[in-house]
Amino acid sequence: MDDLLVMLRAGLPAEAVLTDPDVTASYANDMASFCDAGTPAVVVLPRDVEQVRHVMRTASALGVPVVPQGARTGLSGAANASDGCIVLSLIRMDRILEVNAADRIAVVEPGVVNADLSRAVGERGLYYPPDPSSWETCTIGGNIGTASGGLCCVKYGVTAEYVLGLDVVLADGRLLSTGRRTAKGVAGYDLTRLFVGSEGSLGIVVKAVLGLRPKPPRQLVLAAEFDSVAAACDAVVRIMEGGHTPSMLELMDRTTVHAVNAMANMGLPETTEALLLCAFDTPDPASDLAAVGALCEQAGATTVVPADDESESELLLQARRLSLPALEAVRGVTMIDDVCVPRTRLAEMLNGTAAIADKYDLTIGVVAHAGDGNTHPTVCFDANDPDESRRARESFDEIMALGLDLGGTITGEHGVGVLKKDWLARELGPVALELHRGIKQTFDPQGILNPGKLF
Amino acid sequence: MDDLLVMLRAGLPAEAVLTDPDVTASYANDMASFCDAGTPAVVVLPRDVEQVRHVMRTASALGVPVVPQGARTGLSGAANASDGCIVLSLIRMDRILEVNAADRIAVVEPGVVNADLSRAVGERGLYYPPDPSSWETCTIGGNIGTASGGLCCVKYGVTAEYVLGLDVVLADGRLLSTGRRTAKGVAGYDLTRLFVGSEGSLGIVVKAVLGLRPKPPRQLVLAAEFDSVAAACDAVVRIMEGGHTPSMLELMDRTTVHAVNAMANMGLPETTEALLLCAFDTPDPASDLAAVGALCEQAGATTVVPADDESESELLLQARRLSLPALEAVRGVTMIDDVCVPRTRLAEMLNGTAAIADKYDLTIGVVAHAGDGNTHPTVCFDANDPDESRRARESFDEIMALGLDLGGTITGEHGVGVLKKDWLARELGPVALELHRGIKQTFDPQGILNPGKLF
Repeated sequence: MDDLLVMLRAGLPAEAVLTDPDVTASYANDMASFCDAGTPAVVVLPRDVEQVRHVMRTASALGVPVVPQGARTGLSGAANASDGCIVLSLIRMDRILEVNAADRIAVVEPGVVNADLSRAVGERGLYYPPDPSSWETCTIGGNIGTASGGLCCVKYGVTAEYVLGLDVVLADGRLLSTGRRTAKGVAGYDLTRLFVGSEGSLGIVVKAVLGLRPKPPRQLVLAAEFDSVAAACDAVVRIMEGGHTPSMLELMDRTTVHAVNAMANMGLPETTEALLLCAFDTPDPASDLAAVGALCEQAGATTVVPADDESESELLLQARRLSLPALEAVRGVTMIDDVCVPRTRLAEMLNGTAAIADKYDLTIGVVAHAGDGNTHPTVCFDANDPDESRRARESFDEIMALGLDLGGTITGEHGVGVLKKDWLARELGPVALELHRGIKQTFDPQGILNPGKLF
Repeated sequence: MDDLLVMLRAGLPAEAVLTDPDVTASYANDMASFCDAGTPAVVVLPRDVEQVRHVMRTASALGVPVVPQGARTGLSGAANASDGCIVLSLIRMDRILEVNAADRIAVVEPGVVNADLSRAVGERGLYYPPDPSSWETCTIGGNIGTASGGLCCVKYGVTAEYVLGLDVVLADGRLLSTGRRTAKGVAGYDLTRLFVGSEGSLGIVVKAVLGLRPKPPRQLVLAAEFDSVAAACDAVVRIMEGGHTPSMLELMDRTTVHAVNAMANMGLPETTEALLLCAFDTPDPASDLAAVGALCEQAGATTVVPADDESESELLLQARRLSLPALEAVRGVTMIDDVCVPRTRLAEMLNGTAAIADKYDLTIGVVAHAGDGNTHPTVCFDANDPDESRRARESFDEIMALGLDLGGTITGEHGVGVLKKDWLARELGPVALELHRGIKQTFDPQGILNPGKLF
């Protein structure tokens, strides 16, 4: 321990090495409930690549585990400390190094906050689509580590599709450059993509070249009410089958709508079983919304209300963004699942989740990136009630089992961390798991990078 | 050898095992010039996954190298046989297993021809964008192996972006499933993407889940003539900087234009130094083309001609697609380079290539996916002239060196194969190369999968 601090301080400024246990304890975990977190030995906050290399050289020399962290907004415990680890927080490496409109790229350090990047490129007429719910605080490094999604994915895809190249400090402190800053490139294995979603288990991302798009027009939102979840899911299928490309296609179930009204008095329709929000950022969104509105009606929508203007659209978006905090307020704590199924199986997924809620006598609100088939069944429970907590945990697992049965995945965008480690093995199977271990061994033979996560 | 054939025949129908040397010799190489090819021991043409597994089990039991092949339209020698190898041709596994409009996926076997898939999904109102020049003959398996591009990439990206999940037979015959059939999914390392562009060195793709898009409107094409390559490149930068999203943005230099006219009497403008072809598949392509036409004029275009209709557009597209065969006719043989640079460096790349042509006293025509910065400098030479051949080879290398100097990559879409093996090492550097070897070792510890390619 003394060795560790002495060695770390030899290559880091004093203020970059935190050892006060009260302070380091505050870095012990991300936002996942029910995930074990250990006690860090030390928290380091490097400001540049050389400092990160120094940390990794020290860690590998001493065999100390390293847990990389961004803003700790993750929902799977992937950034949780292990006992005696070095917490390596990248939040001070927060510079946007370059924005190039003609090449449509940004070059950033890992600690840049998602919203800061979005705004900076927006000023240049550009668009960085990935927009996880935590976008006002989460960092690009964290987004890359967990392969974050968001509301935009139905049209624009996930973080992975915007990561063109990386600089990575390896476990032993060597610096690796992957990928490119060109629009295309196929030279060798796609190491860039291997790091995306690897949850800090293969290396420390210290720089990223990100792809940008031209800024689209502001989106216009439509709200459609349904008297059954199945009808809303039918509308989703009709919209996608009809060849539409909405910039957002979200579903809030009755529980979620009530929770949002209870929290923020948004005036959402309390009688609806499912509220669908569909948006277009096309040159003529009103006509796209009209077409989609007609499909919603064919699917049995009881009410279809296109927003008149941007401010109405913004209000609906805000209601959607409030869903998770609102559900958290229902019973004090939530476990947020992240099952993604083929969108043709969405109705089965949601009806099955309702049955699981009944079976366990729990409140489970569902908010879904419906256009992607990506559901967030959110189990509301009182953490002080051991039986309710047990039922919450069991229902959570049953939801994942249902997702796999429907041809889905246990995680559409939140990652595995410690929360879904057992389930990853189940989804991958033994052959893929063995290959995962082989890749891990290649990049991190000592096993010091974020041990105990993923698999 | 006898063992090999006996063992192969134990799990394959007789007609699936070809041993006639005249026949097997015809499977020795793809379409790359100047790449060594060995003599295969046998060619096998399995029809199903179990047969492929049998081949790989046999190969690993005997330690015999396996060279997977699609339509052998590759341009880097990645499908070239090695001496004594099993050529594993997947062309008979050519079934489209599923097309699902609501989930926007197709599930296919590797031997499906790109154009067959494009047409099949087109009938369902869907679109599979990747369109390499060889799309009428090349296979999806080959496209995945080499991470193919095409004309569509400037708007729709490369093959990699459409591969959601794979079934892969590993070197030892085990079957691996990767990825998903959902719109999103981040469970574990991205093994799917690792296989894309791995040129058969990590496993044999036997099934692919491909993402589809709604079919866009037919594109409308504009042709703009410039009296310098630099001016055409300036137009490209203005177009992309201006936030436009063309479905195609191609450049043909003077040499290419002349070659196409010589071959097909297309009536392309002989006096132009650079011809830019820009297309939109938007709802109102004429207005997009008008905006882009104005930008071309600002950049100094001497003539701007928007196509009046689809048939005129098709003619321009045909001229573009004739470029490579036309250049081949100039001196009998070509070496087609594939350097991709940031599009802001495109002018330097093209002027530098012209200087290299002068230096080596060669004809080098350039056709480029200009919107991507992806150039195909095509060195025309007489293979019977040893000195000209030597100069061709040297100029080819110098073009790659120039690309790397400009922050580009040695291959935007054609891959590495044997042609650019030395150059891959140069682009990647020793750290990345070591990781490549580690990954290869994990997937193929015996080194029997396409040995001698890539690195």
